[in-house]
Parts: sequence; C-alpha cells; structure tokens
Amino acid sequence: MDLGMIGLGRMGANMAERLLRGGHRVAGFDPGEAARTAAAARGIEAATSLPELVALLPAPRALWLMVPAGRIVDDTIAALRPLLAPGDVVIDGGNSFYRDSQRRAALLAEDGSGWLDVGTSGGIWGLDEGYSLTIGGDAALAQRLAPLFRALAPAPERGWGHVGPAGAGHFAKMVHNGIEYGLMQAYAEGFAILQRKQDLGFDLAQVADIWREGSVVRSWLLDLTADALRGNPALDGIAPFVADSGEGRWTVAEAIDLNVAAPVITQALLERLRSRDDAAFADKLLAALRDAFGGHGVKRD
Amino acid sequence: MDLGMIGLGRMGANMAERLLRGGHRVAGFDPGEAARTAAAARGIEAATSLPELVALLPAPRALWLMVPAGRIVDDTIAALRPLLAPGDVVIDGGNSFYRDSQRRAALLAEDGSGWLDVGTSGGIWGLDEGYSLTIGGDAALAQRLAPLFRALAPAPERGWGHVGPAGAGHFAKMVHNGIEYGLMQAYAEGFAILQRKQDLGFDLAQVADIWREGSVVRSWLLDLTADALRGNPALDGIAPFVADSGEGRWTVAEAIDLNVAAPVITQALLERLRSRDDAAFADKLLAALRDAFGGHGVKRD
Amino acid sequence: MDLGMIGLGRMGANMAERLLRGGHRVAGFDPGEAARTAAAARGIEAATSLPELVALLPAPRALWLMVPAGRIVDDTIAALRPLLAPGDVVIDGGNSFYRDSQRRAALLAEDGSGWLDVGTSGGIWGLDEGYSLTIGGDAALAQRLAPLFRALAPAPERGWGHVGPAGAGHFAKMVHNGIEYGLMQAYAEGFAILQRKQDLGFDLAQVADIWREGSVVRSWLLDLTADALRGNPALDGIAPFVADSGEGRWTVAEAIDLNVAAPVITQALLERLRSRDDAAFADKLLAALRDAFGGHGVKRD
Amino acid sequence: MDLGMIGLGRMGANMAERLLRGGHRVAGFDPGEAARTAAAARGIEAATSLPELVALLPAPRALWLMVPAGRIVDDTIAALRPLLAPGDVVIDGGNSFYRDSQRRAALLAEDGSGWLDVGTSGGIWGLDEGYSLTIGGDAALAQRLAPLFRALAPAPERGWGHVGPAGAGHFAKMVHNGIEYGLMQAYAEGFAILQRKQDLGFDLAQVADIWREGSVVRSWLLDLTADALRGNPALDGIAPFVADSGEGRWTVAEAIDLNVAAPVITQALLERLRSRDDAAFADKLLAALRDAFGGHGVKRD
Repeated sequence: MDLGMIGLGRMGANMAERLLRGGHRVAGFDPGEAARTAAAARGIEAATSLPELVALLPAPRALWLMVPAGRIVDDTIAALRPLLAPGDVVIDGGNSFYRDSQRRAALLAEDGSGWLDVGTSGGIWGLDEGYSLTIGGDAALAQRLAPLFRALAPAPERGWGHVGPAGAGHFAKMVHNGIEYGLMQAYAEGFAILQRKQDLGFDLAQVADIWREGSVVRSWLLDLTADALRGNPALDGIAPFVADSGEGRWTVAEAIDLNVAAPVITQALLERLRSRDDAAFADKLLAALRDAFGGHGVKRD
Repeated sequence: MDLGMIGLGRMGANMAERLLRGGHRVAGFDPGEAARTAAAARGIEAATSLPELVALLPAPRALWLMVPAGRIVDDTIAALRPLLAPGDVVIDGGNSFYRDSQRRAALLAEDGSGWLDVGTSGGIWGLDEGYSLTIGGDAALAQRLAPLFRALAPAPERGWGHVGPAGAGHFAKMVHNGIEYGLMQAYAEGFAILQRKQDLGFDLAQVADIWREGSVVRSWLLDLTADALRGNPALDGIAPFVADSGEGRWTVAEAIDLNVAAPVITQALLERLRSRDDAAFADKLLAALRDAFGGHGVKRD
Repeated sequence: MDLGMIGLGRMGANMAERLLRGGHRVAGFDPGEAARTAAAARGIEAATSLPELVALLPAPRALWLMVPAGRIVDDTIAALRPLLAPGDVVIDGGNSFYRDSQRRAALLAEDGSGWLDVGTSGGIWGLDEGYSLTIGGDAALAQRLAPLFRALAPAPERGWGHVGPAGAGHFAKMVHNGIEYGLMQAYAEGFAILQRKQDLGFDLAQVADIWREGSVVRSWLLDLTADALRGNPALDGIAPFVADSGEGRWTVAEAIDLNVAAPVITQALLERLRSRDDAAFADKLLAALRDAFGGHGVKRD
Repeated sequence: MDLGMIGLGRMGANMAERLLRGGHRVAGFDPGEAARTAAAARGIEAATSLPELVALLPAPRALWLMVPAGRIVDDTIAALRPLLAPGDVVIDGGNSFYRDSQRRAALLAEDGSGWLDVGTSGGIWGLDEGYSLTIGGDAALAQRLAPLFRALAPAPERGWGHVGPAGAGHFAKMVHNGIEYGLMQAYAEGFAILQRKQDLGFDLAQVADIWREGSVVRSWLLDLTADALRGNPALDGIAPFVADSGEGRWTVAEAIDLNVAAPVITQALLERLRSRDDAAFADKLLAALRDAFGGHGVKRD
C-alpha cells in the first residue's frame, strides 16, 4: 500500500522503514531538512511540504501522523483538511490524549475524511521487533489499512488490533503507559532494595539475568534492566531525575474520573515528580515542624 | 546425581519430576500418604520417614526441603540433624525468611553440614518451563550441586546462579516476590481502568493479547492476564479477595529497615490487605466524620 | 451592611443568620419554597426571584452565592448580569473550582461588576463558631466588604483574609480540603489500628479524649472523632462508604500539574474511591493471577 | 508524692519541673554531670547513681524512666532490679516499643515490682501546656500514682488515662506518632502546593493563620506551621531532610501485622525515607530504563 508519513523523527522514520521492509511504499514529510535528508537516505520519498506529500499519494490516501502530541497535531490536521478528499484517512500514531482524538475524528468526519488513532508501543526497538498497535476508529477503515498494520506489528496476525471507536486506540495506549510506569517503578524499587543490602553483595545484573528465565517477573522490561545494570552496575553518572511524558498523568486523572483507585500507577507517577524536586518544600516544612514541637533541630541546607 | 526431596506437595513433586526428566535420581519423603502415593506414581521413590529417606541416599547427601515456610522447616532440620553426616547438605527451596536461613545455615555448620537457600520461582509452570533459582550459601557447594540446578532451570546455563552467602538466595526471592506484587497490581489497575471505561467497550483479553507482542509492557504475567481474561472476561464468580503469603510483607519491612522508599511495592501489599477488609473501620470513621462536620449523612450498613 | 444571599440551604441560611446576629441586613433568595419559608422564619427576607432580591438591595450591591459548585453558579451569574449595575459585586462562597472563578471574575469585569471568591470552611459548626474565609479578588473590594467578613469569621480580626487575586480564595479552599482528606485519613487509620488490636482492648473514645489535651495530634477533627466514637464506639450501622465532593480530586490534579508530589493527600482520595468499589475488578484480577501462576485458588463470589 | 526521675534530658527535666510545680517531690538521676547540674539548678535533687537515687525515695518507690528507647531501658531496668523492693513501680515514659514494655512488665513482676508504660506526648511544650499521657499496666497502680499524672497532664482530669494492660500505653503512643506522621505530611503537602502556585502569590503564614480559626483543619500542628512559616516563609536554610524516630516504622509494621491497610501513615513514613535518599538508586534505574526503551537520554549526575 501507499502511506504518507508526517513526522520523520526517530519514531516516524523507523516506522516508515519497517513499512518499506514490508513491501509498502512510503512517502514522508517533515518540516526539518535534516530529518528529510536522513529519511531519503533510508529510501523514504521525502516531500518538502504537505501539499507535495498529498500529491504524491493516490486516492484514497492514508496519512499517518507521527508528531509530538498537542497543538502540532491540531495544526497539522488544519493544514491537511483543505488538501484531503472524501475517503482519505488520517491516522494519529502519536501519544495524543484520547479526548483530543475523539474531537479530531469528529472534525475530519465533517469533511468525509476518516480517522484512526493508533496507540503505538515499541520505542526504538520497534524497527526490528515490530510495534504493538491498538487501533481506535471505524472498524472497516482499520480493516482497509490492515496490510500496513501487519507490516508494522511484530507478526502479521499478532500485536495489533482494532479495539474500539475513535479514541479507544489512544485510551488503551494511555493505560499501557500507566501500567509501564507501575512496572518500571516496581523493578526499580526491587533493585534498589538489593543494591542497599550491601552485606549480601548482590551482583544486580546477575540477579536480573537469573530472573529473566523461568521466573514470575520475567518481562521485556526486565531484559532491559539486566542490560542497563550489566553495563553500569552502580548506574554511575546517571542523575536520579525521571521525566514523564504526559500519559502517566492522564492515566491517573482518568482513573480518578472513573472512580477507580489505582494506587500503584499513581505512586509511580508521584515518585517521578519527587525525583525532580530536590529541594522539596514539603520536606523542609516537615523538618521545621519536627524542630518546632520536639526541638529535634534541622539539617542545614 | 542423587537428591532427597522432602515435601512432595505440588512444588516438591513437580521439581522432583523435572529432575527425573533431567536424568537424576530422586527419592522423596512426605508425611502425607496421599502425597507419597502420587509421587511414587510419577517415578519418585517415596520413603515413609526421614531416616528411611536418608538411608536411601549415598553420602555426601543432598536433601532439598520443599515445605511451607516457618516452624516446619525448623522441625524438619531438627529431625534431620542426627541423621546427617559431615559433608551432607540441606537445601531450602521454599519461601523462608532470609534471616531464618542465615540462622539455619549457622546451625548446620555446627554439625559440619552444608546449607544452600534457593529462591525458587516458576510456580505450577516450572515443571515444563523450568524454575528460576537464586542460590545463597557456600559457592563451592552450589558448584557441586550444579547438575541439579541445570536440570531444574529453564536452560542449563540460564535462569540460575549463586548470588551470595547464606540468606542471599532467599533475600533475592523475597525481593522478587515484592516486585511481583507491584507488577501484578500495575496490570490489575490498568485493566480495571479499561474495564470501567464502558463507553469504549474494550475486549480486555484482546488488548492484553495485543500488548503481548512488541509492547513495552509485554511479560509473562501479561501472558497469564490474557489467558485469565480470555476465559472469563468479567472475572465472574471470583471474589475481590487477594491473599498474601508473607514475602511481600517482608519486602516492605526490609525496605524500611534499609531506608529505601518502595511506595509501589508497599501500596501493592496494602491493597491486598484492603481487599480482605470489607468492613474497613477506617472508612466507617471517615464517613462518620464527614457527617459530623458537614452534615453529609452516612450510608447505612 | 446589606447583603443578598443566593442559596438558602444549610450553609447559606446559617451564614445569613450569623450575619444577622452580627447586625447586618440580609435578604435572600432560593428557588425552593421550603428553603425560603425556613429562612424567613429565621429573620431573613426571602425574595421569590433574583430580580426581586436585587431590587431589595441598595447599590452598590453585594450578592453572595452559596449554591452547589458547577453549572448552577454559571446559570445564576448569567441571570444576575442583566440585573446588576457597575460597582455591584458577586461573591462566590461555595466550593467552586478556582479556574472557574477566574473565568467568572473576568466575565463580570466586562460589566464593571466586581468579584470575590471566598473559600469558606466551618461546615455546620460555622453558625456558632464562625467561618474560616480565604478571599480572592480585588483587595479594595475585600476591604469594602470587611464588615461582612468580620461578622462571619470566628473573631473580627481572625480567621479571614484577602489572600490573592481572583481564584486565590478558592484555590486555598481546595488545598484546605485536600489537607482535610489527609488529616481525616490519618486519624481513621490510627483508630482502625487501635480497634483491630483487640487483645489490648482499647476504648477508642477514651484514647481520643486523652489526645485532645496536650498531645501533638490535638485538633478540631480529633474533637469530632472523640464525639463520634463516644456515641457509637463500634461505628455500628455506618457503611464503610466514603463520598468525596470534588475538591480532593482537584487538589490531586493541581498538585500533579504543579509537579508537586502529594502522596498522602492522593492516597486519602484513592482510599475514598476504593471504599465505594466493593467489587473491585483489580482485586478480582489479582486473585485470578495468583491462581494462574501459583495454583492458589480463588475465593468465590 | 515522691518520684525518682531517671534521665534528666530535655523531656525528663521538663517533666520533673512540672511535677515540682505541682507540689510533688522529685529526685533525679542522669549519667551526665551537665544534665545533673542543670537539673539541680531547677530544683531537682540530682543523685549521682541509681543506688543513691533509690535511697533518696521512700517505699513504695516510683521510678520514672525518661531515657532513649532501646537497650538503655533494658540496662537501666537490670541495674534497678537488685535495688528495688516489692511494691516499687517502674514507669517507662519514653517511646519504647510496646512489646518490649510487655516483656519488661513480666520481668519486673517476677520481683514483685510494678510496671506502667506511659505514652507521653507534648514535646518541648509540655512543661507549660502539660503532657498527654496514655497509661498501660495495672489499673490499681495507675490509680495510686494518679496525683503524678494529674500534675503532668494539661488539666487534673483531662489528657491522661489508664488505657489497658502493660504495653497498651506505648501501643497507643506508637499509633499517636503514626497519626502525627500522616497529619504533618498532609499539611506539608498542602503548603507545598500553595507555595508552588506562584502566580497566585500566597503568603503561606497568612493562609495558615486564617485556617487556625474556624476551619476544619485547625489544629495545634497548624498553629506550629503558622509560626514556622511566619518566621521563615521560604524555609530558607532548612534542608529537605526529615528524620524519623522509630514509632512511625513500628506503626506501619503493626498495621500490616494486623492486616489493616494504612496507606497514609505508610506513605508519610516512606516520604521521610525518600527525603534522606538524594541519590535514589531506584530513580537512577528508572532514568536508565526510559533511555533504554525510548532513547530519551538521561540527565547526568
């Protein structure tokens, strides 16, 4: 099939290449010249504008957005709308908020254009291992584009699926990332406990390697943990500073909105916030209060 | 090699069978006649007493305990001590507390007997998939028994290892189970969010299946989750009542003792406690207080 | 001074009465006839419509909204706008979201009308003990209405203040309620621990009473706790079902938005959600998973 | 009455002085000469040894221990035992673990000596405001010493009481401190949120002051919070480093032992651990993992 990939950053370019490997034709666009040049070197036809990209594709067109979540998605859709014909379909494979996807689907429907939101997991490993894809939107549309999903997924009939109406693909991906936060934090805590138990002298990478085989906690994240610890057992030079990209926050907010208690996913997010707050006001106040009622003194800054 | 397996319940009998499959000779003992009969039917020589078991084994003997953690381990060791000769080794493959293992190792060392504590993961799947084994105790002893570990593990050179002195094997297993609590809770929360988002109508087993391939959250626990949801999507008939077996509690206590904040593992444990407290006094008091200051009324029991 | 109180429910009518006791004149409006009749019986002039209420007040008017947060505040403001003259001021004393208050302040400013948002704490005890008031909006306006605040507060110069621009009063109240969630949960957990420690046979009300004097944990909420436990030590007949009214959720969301980790306030909210979810899907899934890997069985529903 | 106070540190000396003010006679002992000299200057007879102290008191003697929890309590009791006569009573007013108190009560009972464990709250404010006292042990003994408790408490008939058998006084104090952790953390989080909301420009001490009157969150800890923030609104020079003294840990452990979920008290403890771990290994590993699967990079140390 033919696909237009909008956004040729790491994720977009890798996905385009995996589609090429799968025998599809991919034209792409990126506002950055360096990204276009790099993409062209990987065999992706790189248009220098959205109109040029659209012109390169036969109708009905499929245009896959792989751009940062937020306003840039809206701006791109606004720029595309005059260029599209009824029957064309816009696919958002980024980490957009699912309510935005529902709104965008409705907007495109006004033009007779189709919409799919595709929660895409796999990171930098997806190029070779394939991507996990949860698809929201019209089921028939998802079926029409199945050849693309088969090529992107780890296996033609596994790792992808149409999971519900518009928004459902991104809702599922949001929850996926919430789970990811919890899983990562669970491993991180466990290895921190082993690391601190110095009288037993654990080799953390060895323990991780043992658990990778046959244990209840074996997983791909544990594989990565073993790799990370093998190369740098003390994690020297890495600051205890953990970013978060939005989906964890949304998961926490949606859980509360749905009256579901999700303490582990929530605490995993809070720990990330805490990791970036090294002059925590709350802790200063606690220290001040202990001194105020107990005369315990405080540690000075 | 020859091994004596003490405790022929589900775990012990399965491990014995896996050793038999690996070409080893296993004699066993269990106080229950039914367990002995079942074991004998699987090719395990079943002694009717500890002295008989010990007599069946050539010196230096290896005796593997697969019994419930706690006093029964102490009682069994007490019963074994007069039967053992210097150079014999006792292996505890159960979920014992690591400090107990350290104490027991010191006790057996008084007799000239060896000790290994083996954190064993794999559950009912271990028979066919192999067990993950973290071994604490004397390194040379672990090396001597390596043929047994190679047969029990998923692969001869993977999934097992000597991780430190006595206690280290059980300490690692304790942390393994703490991580397991966190991982399970993360998945459980994620699927609870999907389940509650009824307007998107997710097929939970399908989502789990998609994530099993290529996603960041793929794992063996996710494989089990997909199976559980496929057979019973609404989890009908299953009470929201979650037992805990001790290792999660120990992990929480050890983390605090080591001054490591482990909020996710801790919350995962607390949620299990909460699941079993359906008349939570704290919540009653909160309801009473809201009424007391705000006149909000309470729901009656 | 003259004040128009819109909303003569428990909070509005009590505040009106406290203002009357303070020598002010209060006219009021409520859409419900019963509320109007009850208010009239307490000496509050009860108008049958907003226009009638506005007509009863001399310019520049002060109109205090004490209605449920949400759309009804917007609807009331929309109905008031044509009736107001420049210089009139609308005060929202309810538990509105602070961003709504900021929006409403801007809207009224278009008409030349003033705005104050007043975070009001005190519940059903405020009539006799006075209300705690955090005031957002124009400082001069807050000063102009100071006589009203002096009468509502526990003491003329204590328990009230102008804390910042529009929205600040409600933001502070939101955080107040977040803190309240955390405090209540802390007491509830503590008394639940005492209650469960049955071999020591605590009289919970007695312990609460002792702590009310001289201890670090003495507080008004502890006073209420002692009262609640004295009358009903086992909290018989009270369901462990805890409602929440929105401000806890907003606090959690704002804290995350500000990158402040607030684990205790957050857990206090999550426990309320959990208290109302007695067939928690997450716990069912945990039980199913334990059975799947460990063969532990499940408790049937 | 006559009392022997063992331990003339801040707490012991203040309590002795309050007893003196109440008309009692207090002899004291402390191993430190400076503490003895300071005590003598406050009118406390300061013995230079335990035998001398015991000799100063008429039988039946009351000896109040106000020493650090742990071995020093055991050592002191061991030193006292040969000096005591049947009918003498030892009172432990420190923050001992309740199971230790139960053990010590049994030990002294062998000699015919009495025991009371007195959970004592009030900190450095107790001298002037009185102490809150929860008393465990023999009820008749508590009654015999009531004159002392009346003098120590904030008021003769309030703020103290016999709450149960040996251990109950310290168990209650342990829970008191657990609650205290939760309360402090709730306030700390709330003020951290206000502090971070910089566009609203809150004066934190002012907000605290307003809430002190009439609000649901008014408390003694809030009074202290207002004081702390008034003197140093930015908490300059205070490190975000929060010590913990043991009782929070015990509360968490006991709650788990009793199968009571206490998420808020628990999180309050964990946050203290986290405050002291500024190179958190778990956070380093999270950062490394994010980079490993997503290529997000890490912040360097």
